Amino acid sequence: MPQGRPLAVPDDGLTTRARRNAPLLAVHTGAGKGKSTAAFGMALRAWNQGFDIAVFQFVKSAKWKVGEEAAFRQLGRLHDEHGVGGPVEWHKMGAGWSWSRKAGTDDDHAAAAADGWAEIARRLAQERHDFYVLDEFTYPLKWGWIDLDEVIATLTSRPGTQHVVITGRDAPQPLLDAADLVTEMTKVKHPMDVGRKGQKGIEW
Amino acid sequence: MPQGRPLAVPDDGLTTRARRNAPLLAVHTGAGKGKSTAAFGMALRAWNQGFDIAVFQFVKSAKWKVGEEAAFRQLGRLHDEHGVGGPVEWHKMGAGWSWSRKAGTDDDHAAAAADGWAEIARRLAQERHDFYVLDEFTYPLKWGWIDLDEVIATLTSRPGTQHVVITGRDAPQPLLDAADLVTEMTKVKHPMDVGRKGQKGIEW
Repeated sequence: MPQGRPLAVPDDGLTTRARRNAPLLAVHTGAGKGKSTAAFGMALRAWNQGFDIAVFQFVKSAKWKVGEEAAFRQLGRLHDEHGVGGPVEWHKMGAGWSWSRKAGTDDDHAAAAADGWAEIARRLAQERHDFYVLDEFTYPLKWGWIDLDEVIATLTSRPGTQHVVITGRDAPQPLLDAADLVTEMTKVKHPMDVGRKGQKGIEW
Repeated sequence: MPQGRPLAVPDDGLTTRARRNAPLLAVHTGAGKGKSTAAFGMALRAWNQGFDIAVFQFVKSAKWKVGEEAAFRQLGRLHDEHGVGGPVEWHKMGAGWSWSRKAGTDDDHAAAAADGWAEIARRLAQERHDFYVLDEFTYPLKWGWIDLDEVIATLTSRPGTQHVVITGRDAPQPLLDAADLVTEMTKVKHPMDVGRKGQKGIEW
């Protein structure tokens, strides 16, 4: 349990209040479970504070995240209809980005990924949301579909107090260096190793 | 991404369907962030499938989980008033267990923890819920407030298809041995190490 007592107080001239409002870049990586799940748990907390939430899923198939998507759409409805929590947007590359007609087709995943990132960069520049989840974003970085240097430059120079959480295995070192919070999820034991199948309410 | 293809098919005489419905015991441990957050993310997915959710928080101060609690109370309302998702119960040791008048006082944390576990054991026997989060449950185990052998025996013999997720540092080895899924959250980098403070919408 964090006790709110930092191990060191940096000599950065910032007030405690400024430090408390500093925008967070978090990375959840490693081969274990819970990377995306913990990111969505963070988004739940942010939603409760009235933050504007945007999720971008960088995967072809969104099969394993339908539960979270459905739950967050309900939370977004609670905001829109009852003024509870914050607004929620949920965008999926696998289904073709909602803002785009051209990209996100079956033909060109690399172009779709690049298009997704370009839109995120535009939104960061506009300070459009308070809390971004870039789910499985490490894969298009790893595959060279999106330029890592540009991503780092855009993230580290983003204006305002926009929080960004990035998930996926094999996060590149420069991204870890740029992040404020890095957690590695390590697989100790997994039921699929002993022949168990994915389960309703657990895996999706 | 799990592909749904187990590495081995066990010789347990179970059908795929039976294995798919097998109750899961998951443990999130380690010194990193995201143990509870990922558990609540799992609960979100279970809620979306209409599962009956019960959260038991084994901490004196619930300061850091108020965001999740508020969000899950909203989700529970969505179920009760609109028939969406599943019902939600949220119990806190820190505030005195809601079902108990005697335990949970400021005086005796060990008795309150034991009372909490006794109630969970009763509910497991009754198959009262579908998905249990035992948040920070490793600490009363570690401190000897709750008997580990009895916990293992109760969990491994629980009837039906009740899923249980336990969080906290230093999970004891017998609990890991009994679990189906164990994930260790490892701290790679944490903003408090460099003097940053807990943040609204991030830490609570």
